[in-house]
Amino acid sequence: MFKINENYLKLPGSYLFSTIAKKVNEFQAANPEKSVIRLGIGDVTQPLAPVIIDALHGAVDEMGKAETFHGYAPDLGYEFLRTAIAKNDYADRGCDIAADEIFVSDGAKCDSGNIQEIFSVDNKIAVCDPVYPVYVDTNVMAGRTGTYDSKTEMWSDVIYMPCTAENNFAPELPKETPDMIYLCFPNNPTGATITKDQLQVWVDYANKVGAVIIYDAAYEAYISEPDVPHTIFECEGARTCAIELKSFSKNAGFTGTRLGYTVIPKDLKCGDVMLHSLWARRHGTKYNGAPYIQQRAGEAVYSPEGKEQLAKQVAYYMNNAKVIKEGLQEAGYTVSGGVNAPYIWLKTPGTMTSWEFFDYLLANANVVGTPGSGFGPSGEGYFRLTAFGTYENTVAALERIKKM
Amino acid sequence: MFKINENYLKLPGSYLFSTIAKKVNEFQAANPEKSVIRLGIGDVTQPLAPVIIDALHGAVDEMGKAETFHGYAPDLGYEFLRTAIAKNDYADRGCDIAADEIFVSDGAKCDSGNIQEIFSVDNKIAVCDPVYPVYVDTNVMAGRTGTYDSKTEMWSDVIYMPCTAENNFAPELPKETPDMIYLCFPNNPTGATITKDQLQVWVDYANKVGAVIIYDAAYEAYISEPDVPHTIFECEGARTCAIELKSFSKNAGFTGTRLGYTVIPKDLKCGDVMLHSLWARRHGTKYNGAPYIQQRAGEAVYSPEGKEQLAKQVAYYMNNAKVIKEGLQEAGYTVSGGVNAPYIWLKTPGTMTSWEFFDYLLANANVVGTPGSGFGPSGEGYFRLTAFGTYENTVAALERIKKM
Repeated sequence: MFKINENYLKLPGSYLFSTIAKKVNEFQAANPEKSVIRLGIGDVTQPLAPVIIDALHGAVDEMGKAETFHGYAPDLGYEFLRTAIAKNDYADRGCDIAADEIFVSDGAKCDSGNIQEIFSVDNKIAVCDPVYPVYVDTNVMAGRTGTYDSKTEMWSDVIYMPCTAENNFAPELPKETPDMIYLCFPNNPTGATITKDQLQVWVDYANKVGAVIIYDAAYEAYISEPDVPHTIFECEGARTCAIELKSFSKNAGFTGTRLGYTVIPKDLKCGDVMLHSLWARRHGTKYNGAPYIQQRAGEAVYSPEGKEQLAKQVAYYMNNAKVIKEGLQEAGYTVSGGVNAPYIWLKTPGTMTSWEFFDYLLANANVVGTPGSGFGPSGEGYFRLTAFGTYENTVAALERIKKM
Repeated sequence: MFKINENYLKLPGSYLFSTIAKKVNEFQAANPEKSVIRLGIGDVTQPLAPVIIDALHGAVDEMGKAETFHGYAPDLGYEFLRTAIAKNDYADRGCDIAADEIFVSDGAKCDSGNIQEIFSVDNKIAVCDPVYPVYVDTNVMAGRTGTYDSKTEMWSDVIYMPCTAENNFAPELPKETPDMIYLCFPNNPTGATITKDQLQVWVDYANKVGAVIIYDAAYEAYISEPDVPHTIFECEGARTCAIELKSFSKNAGFTGTRLGYTVIPKDLKCGDVMLHSLWARRHGTKYNGAPYIQQRAGEAVYSPEGKEQLAKQVAYYMNNAKVIKEGLQEAGYTVSGGVNAPYIWLKTPGTMTSWEFFDYLLANANVVGTPGSGFGPSGEGYFRLTAFGTYENTVAALERIKKM
């Protein structure tokens, strides 16, 4: 009789956003006359920029003619896109990353979930707390996290690095030595960032202890302050210790279009084995390349028109972030994030838990946000609002919150 | 110090198609005046059908307007596509599969590689020999296959089911009981099929011994004979033992567009646990849904115009298959496949190995095919040609082979 992967059964409850969706549906069913504003999930609302629409149409036309039809894409991505990424996201920032160190994929969620596969099950992971749940959950599925304590909401074999108001939401070097360190800056959910000097400390630490840093830079486009690094490869020594995950979802609105990439420098090795080779083998064996039309759309992101149109889109969302942040401050909340990230992180009032505040906000302002506790135990007592709504909805939501 | 997944290092040599590409490049560099015809890799050459191009353009237009923009897709697929699949591929064939038992993805290669994740590492797999290499390779990566014997080219913990001329390329029930059985019909690479009655024997066997069948039906659209099943769910009892993998790559030319789906009936359980729930959890945690525009293109496949245009495309390739099969027979080869599949499987002449015939064919006819031994030890002495080239190239290739 076949057996299942028992690790899956260890995962507690349902996924955060499914629970939110259920609660919102129930509220809406009970209050059909109320208009609910969703500032919860990190999904974009602005349409794709004109230059991207043009690129998609152009690529679709190519697929309709025998002379320009494209079958299987190269597993690791088309040269035109890898070259554009290497130039714009790395060379232009003075970072030494070659086009063939870039692996194009259908998004950073897949990559951040799959990347752990190339590592030993015996490796110990360290994660920021709170953080994007995919890092821990995918390691649970692989059997890397030990047992779950439902009281502390922590796994026995995971090193948690609390990010709270006390340390300005920046993790401290862990006391126990990890093998794999997940860092996400600008952070989801806190919106916090660290400076280049602070990130250099992590790179030096990883090189010293022989850890690999999995650096999720999905929100990089929202960085507005000059001393915040846009990529971990701005730090010296990152080529021997870091993998970087990037997405087109938030800088170009590709959440429903699907495109991302992962960078693995060839200098990153375990003994003689390049992690680059392992990931290439994974891509070649389990993946069939990102669609041609999406890769052409990705290329358009780096065109002069693309850069201009997308800068406006980012500015639009960051203006929402400002509306949320200032509105909450006016209403007396303690707030962080929203300067280098589309996420605003607020302290719940008094002793309210994250889920109590979720219910309170939904019932009284008809606004949906995300409970901080959903991102890890240190997120308890916090709450995330996102700047990805429309301007009109964002303003309306804040008016309601201020009246609450 | 971090450690890697050592299972990756067990994988022998490079991937079949990379080796072929290397040999062809070398030949072309040494003989720049020769025109090489590629009938090797199973990639399509006909452009996307007009109805699909229209659907893609329409969906792209939607993505460019705020009112019709689509962000994150439902993890498991849009309702419109799941409903179209359930109706056309199952209900219309009298099979009982609900829309919510269908998981839309970016292709069958990913699904066939990832599906093993939801099973225990202790499960024993059985595979047809020869077969699509992804089944074994992804189980090697997961540590499920024991040790590799480079002489026999077999893994110690894999049950091989030889498919040769002696059994008409149809596997026999294995002597040792497997937990997971990979079946692929119409078969890649042999092009062989089994009848509904033969498949029913497998379903009954799996239900009896408590095995799960992973049924890859990627080439289903090429079936022309009436007694060959189009889905394993035509068999009684399949709902308690089978998972089916389907692709839009070969019936609709989506190799570079990327869309597929996996069916897991809710009756398929290990104890109380539905495999459906485990796969849903995997999709929700590690995947972000197939792109909206591709799902609209998939929907168009099931429209009346789509069916008509794609039937013509399949007929075009099957005419190529006929040209190849009859041409080879005229030239005195022993040939099978090509009736219910776009693959033609030939016995190499005399005592030539598969790779020797590859070199011989490349040197003398400048035609590229795929060595049968690349698909498993029982593929030695066989060779695969595909019908996915253009008609003109296929005719020219056969003229050259006949003169050889």
